[in-house]
Amino acid sequence: MLPTTNPAPPFALTRASHVSLGVTDLEASRDFYRDVIGLVVTEETNDTVYFRGLEEAAHHSLVLQRSDEARAHRVGFRVRTDDDIVAAERYFSDAGIEHERVEKPYQGPTLQFTDAVGTHVELTSSMQLVERRMQNFDEFVAGAPQRIDHFQVVTHDVQTATDFWAGLGMRMAEFTAKDGTDELWGTWLEVKGNTHDLVFTNGRGPRLHHFAFTVPDATALLHAADVAGALGFGGEIDRGPGRHGISNALFLYLRDPDQHRIELFTTHYQFIDLEDQPIRWEISNPRRAQLWGLPASRRWFFEASEFPDEAVRDPLLQATPETLEEFLSIH
Amino acid sequence: MLPTTNPAPPFALTRASHVSLGVTDLEASRDFYRDVIGLVVTEETNDTVYFRGLEEAAHHSLVLQRSDEARAHRVGFRVRTDDDIVAAERYFSDAGIEHERVEKPYQGPTLQFTDAVGTHVELTSSMQLVERRMQNFDEFVAGAPQRIDHFQVVTHDVQTATDFWAGLGMRMAEFTAKDGTDELWGTWLEVKGNTHDLVFTNGRGPRLHHFAFTVPDATALLHAADVAGALGFGGEIDRGPGRHGISNALFLYLRDPDQHRIELFTTHYQFIDLEDQPIRWEISNPRRAQLWGLPASRRWFFEASEFPDEAVRDPLLQATPETLEEFLSIH
Amino acid sequence: MLPTTNPAPPFALTRASHVSLGVTDLEASRDFYRDVIGLVVTEETNDTVYFRGLEEAAHHSLVLQRSDEARAHRVGFRVRTDDDIVAAERYFSDAGIEHERVEKPYQGPTLQFTDAVGTHVELTSSMQLVERRMQNFDEFVAGAPQRIDHFQVVTHDVQTATDFWAGLGMRMAEFTAKDGTDELWGTWLEVKGNTHDLVFTNGRGPRLHHFAFTVPDATALLHAADVAGALGFGGEIDRGPGRHGISNALFLYLRDPDQHRIELFTTHYQFIDLEDQPIRWEISNPRRAQLWGLPASRRWFFEASEFPDEAVRDPLLQATPETLEEFLSIH
Amino acid sequence: MLPTTNPAPPFALTRASHVSLGVTDLEASRDFYRDVIGLVVTEETNDTVYFRGLEEAAHHSLVLQRSDEARAHRVGFRVRTDDDIVAAERYFSDAGIEHERVEKPYQGPTLQFTDAVGTHVELTSSMQLVERRMQNFDEFVAGAPQRIDHFQVVTHDVQTATDFWAGLGMRMAEFTAKDGTDELWGTWLEVKGNTHDLVFTNGRGPRLHHFAFTVPDATALLHAADVAGALGFGGEIDRGPGRHGISNALFLYLRDPDQHRIELFTTHYQFIDLEDQPIRWEISNPRRAQLWGLPASRRWFFEASEFPDEAVRDPLLQATPETLEEFLSIH
Repeated sequence: MLPTTNPAPPFALTRASHVSLGVTDLEASRDFYRDVIGLVVTEETNDTVYFRGLEEAAHHSLVLQRSDEARAHRVGFRVRTDDDIVAAERYFSDAGIEHERVEKPYQGPTLQFTDAVGTHVELTSSMQLVERRMQNFDEFVAGAPQRIDHFQVVTHDVQTATDFWAGLGMRMAEFTAKDGTDELWGTWLEVKGNTHDLVFTNGRGPRLHHFAFTVPDATALLHAADVAGALGFGGEIDRGPGRHGISNALFLYLRDPDQHRIELFTTHYQFIDLEDQPIRWEISNPRRAQLWGLPASRRWFFEASEFPDEAVRDPLLQATPETLEEFLSIH
Repeated sequence: MLPTTNPAPPFALTRASHVSLGVTDLEASRDFYRDVIGLVVTEETNDTVYFRGLEEAAHHSLVLQRSDEARAHRVGFRVRTDDDIVAAERYFSDAGIEHERVEKPYQGPTLQFTDAVGTHVELTSSMQLVERRMQNFDEFVAGAPQRIDHFQVVTHDVQTATDFWAGLGMRMAEFTAKDGTDELWGTWLEVKGNTHDLVFTNGRGPRLHHFAFTVPDATALLHAADVAGALGFGGEIDRGPGRHGISNALFLYLRDPDQHRIELFTTHYQFIDLEDQPIRWEISNPRRAQLWGLPASRRWFFEASEFPDEAVRDPLLQATPETLEEFLSIH
Repeated sequence: MLPTTNPAPPFALTRASHVSLGVTDLEASRDFYRDVIGLVVTEETNDTVYFRGLEEAAHHSLVLQRSDEARAHRVGFRVRTDDDIVAAERYFSDAGIEHERVEKPYQGPTLQFTDAVGTHVELTSSMQLVERRMQNFDEFVAGAPQRIDHFQVVTHDVQTATDFWAGLGMRMAEFTAKDGTDELWGTWLEVKGNTHDLVFTNGRGPRLHHFAFTVPDATALLHAADVAGALGFGGEIDRGPGRHGISNALFLYLRDPDQHRIELFTTHYQFIDLEDQPIRWEISNPRRAQLWGLPASRRWFFEASEFPDEAVRDPLLQATPETLEEFLSIH
Repeated sequence: MLPTTNPAPPFALTRASHVSLGVTDLEASRDFYRDVIGLVVTEETNDTVYFRGLEEAAHHSLVLQRSDEARAHRVGFRVRTDDDIVAAERYFSDAGIEHERVEKPYQGPTLQFTDAVGTHVELTSSMQLVERRMQNFDEFVAGAPQRIDHFQVVTHDVQTATDFWAGLGMRMAEFTAKDGTDELWGTWLEVKGNTHDLVFTNGRGPRLHHFAFTVPDATALLHAADVAGALGFGGEIDRGPGRHGISNALFLYLRDPDQHRIELFTTHYQFIDLEDQPIRWEISNPRRAQLWGLPASRRWFFEASEFPDEAVRDPLLQATPETLEEFLSIH
């Protein structure tokens, strides 16, 4: 069933903002994101490293936390003002949704909650400002990632996840559905005016499939791959370079030392006007997964990062043997 | 004086949407925008040609109108809903601003008005949907422009222009000011969440300096230049390729057969968070105009398209002889 | 055993020049090479289509011949002068190598022969000149291939093939060998001063694995893939985009409607100085095949185009079960 | 008068190889070529820094020598073997051309001479081998220059210069001539099989106008410009980015701290076949200088590096006032 975007959401979400990951070898992971991906280290403490993209003025968009287990700790979104944090708190209380105000360094008022399918989320209304480095071209490394863009979450229940976030004001830009039905197998949701800020796909979940940063162009994408190869991470590309049918992204996916997955991509299109309709892709259409090239690896299809202490459930929609192959090429 | 963005604007502007130009040889201009720039012809009548960028689902973002005189007829912005058109009408009435409801083919409710410095503007809340061509890669031509992005207007009074649009909810992302003062010489205003939708620069105005389309990457920009050269328009590049300090755009400016100017560019950065501060550039800093390379041509500095029947006034802020050279490199 | 390049070859080879293919649907194949690859049609007759790259001044570098069977008819090389054709004729006579003078339209004196491993080859000393189109940027299509570059032949006997061509003056730029031995599994041979003009790899042969054209840059390579996707040939990319360790090529391989294979690539390096040593890659080193990314498809490994009436033999060097996986990533 | 290439030259030139420059601040110049251009430092002594491009296996292609004066010391070419050095020595002796055998570190047998128009030249037959860094993608900086390609020399007598080098086996790939005559104003000469290894243009000479390195693609060219801007050398780009009609190069010219000029470029085309004819450009054709964009700066036209103790002479062919403007756009 297609979701209905709330035209008057309870609080104002503005964009995907940051992700925090538990990593088992902090120094190895720091080196990976700095040297293989090209993110800027904003700050480094004994047990935490804060990164941002080259153009970002916010203190961090990726936070690595020294941890015993490799887990996706939390995905973060921005709300417009401090008042939106208060409104969100009230809304979650009224709706009986688990949430908690927390203190987070370099962040304004911060609220954590768990969405309807178990995704661990954090909202904040501001961050400490730091210098944009987008014109420090001499410091560009590897893919020269500019900014965080979106998250993709594998969920056992795409419909419920989608309805939850549509209720918070997100619009669906594209979706996959079982042929001839409105049974949702994947949804691309946005709030910042282009293709997606949050993606849900059908599978064992909740698990964070990947977080994505934009890169300047196709050449940067390939340079990231070349640098990964040169630094011994060539085998950690588990998909791409390729072109998704859905969203039109030119993509490259890499696994970090704990097997968390980062996407580098280009080619968002604008999605602002209210008359724009979501693009529908039948599951039977192989072009949704990629317009050309080789299929993704099995690692890409089946591996993702769990959230701490969050049970992973089997998907409500089961791929039958004859659709498994199709399913494999959905996402 | 720095403008104050209205946090509760009278109606909801969402983005720069379309521009209409009077051209004296419709066929020559159509060929230029189709073959040298690479825009898609949506529709063509005896006296009008409608174009859009490759990713655009809206019917038109550039309208050429057969005309006796080469004039910039009107720049267009989108508002969110039909109600916003009504709200805008009420607001302009209350404020004593000249405006008029008009019927425009392929557009929803449309309101025309003249802003505080004489810019001819049009608002609409929707357009007829057409197919996005962003995945028709075999049809990509020249710069493969994806979507309209912003307008730059030369005005005799940057302060007044800026205050007017800040009152409608636009935020200033960057600005140039006389050293050590808040005397505004140029302002980059945005509403869609990245660097600019509307730019005002000091000079004889109102005149439309250029309208801008995004291209996929630097290679597309250079390919557009190569195609322009191959088709005999190599001399109609009046600036670039180069990199602006302001906005960080990698740019190329071309003149059409009537000398209207189009910018192709890449490299917007995001400007969504409320704590983001506008970037200030002193007039005495030559890096604002370009980070490298040769200065713009005199044509680029002094030529622009007048609006019909709108008197052009001398700027309130006069460049003194010793600052003229500086002035030349402002924009 | 490493080959010894003949310092005074019997005649002067200068470069890879052209390839002729038998195709079963001439119109479909013409459309493929013109629209999906971007080659220029020089001339078209009832049963033959002649193509060239955008920068080429020679009449043809690819010849399609209407045929009942999909076969690689012949790979062509240039010699410096007409006298070199005479010298070649004398040399092959003395050496007892099968050869024949033939008349070929648009070509100077032409000599056909079969090399020591069964490759069908043709030498010519000149071609009719046509206009270079390298500055007709408005005519660039898909990958915008600039010129033919090299051939790769699968052979049952890499050592014999390599010795034969080294005797004609070719130098080995890179090679793969069984670890710790000089047992050759693949050789990259050149005569024009960069990495390769002719490649031999171990397998069932003789079969033409692919012929290669240069493209301007990585962006052109990806645009070719996008155009292939848009025109329904996305599934005919059987390897890439990727980066070979051997030769450092950034590559994309596509299959034509008869399953002949064309490579588009960038990134030759210069190989002129006599003190330059060939680069050796152990079979056990997976980086030779690619520096990053997913392995090639089985189609890429096992399928290639036979020559007419030329028996295909099993390779002298057999991949043992434990080295088959290695073998798969050799080429 | 068009030159006649010697089909049996007295010795075998193979390619442009290296250039040595006198610089007045060795550390500043080293930083420039390493950080702004992206060359690899092979070795550094108290008064000399040796550089090479990323793909080069030869010890050096640029040598900076601490000096009281900024001078172009010498341009270097390779010959095929040591015997060619001996043959060259004999040839210059017989021809009464000033020459001298010298010892140069890291070079094989080396012979210095002065050509017919005063260019200081050096020949060598080999260099110490070092590691190619073309796959160390993580070390790529700025333009990521791959290899030295050619030299451009301003001379008072293009005809004499051209005849001299044609006598050594060089072929003319392109030339500029006074309209309707064979009065040579510029010649592009090659020996390695593509557009040029050595260029002569009319003017006060002999002076080294520039030496050129290849870069991987247009994106690298623009990244070099961006890095130059970021590091404070944005004003030292005295031409480009642009596209020459002659040679089809996409170019960027930068001045080093002593105002020696380096070109970064892409887009050589192949020039091997003997039937290929040189491309002729009339002086009256403005497209020869550039296919699009703004003209070069006066610095680019009139400034170049003198050779030590070599008198600079006025050109034999004087630009008349009415052709001066034309002359400005020749080169």
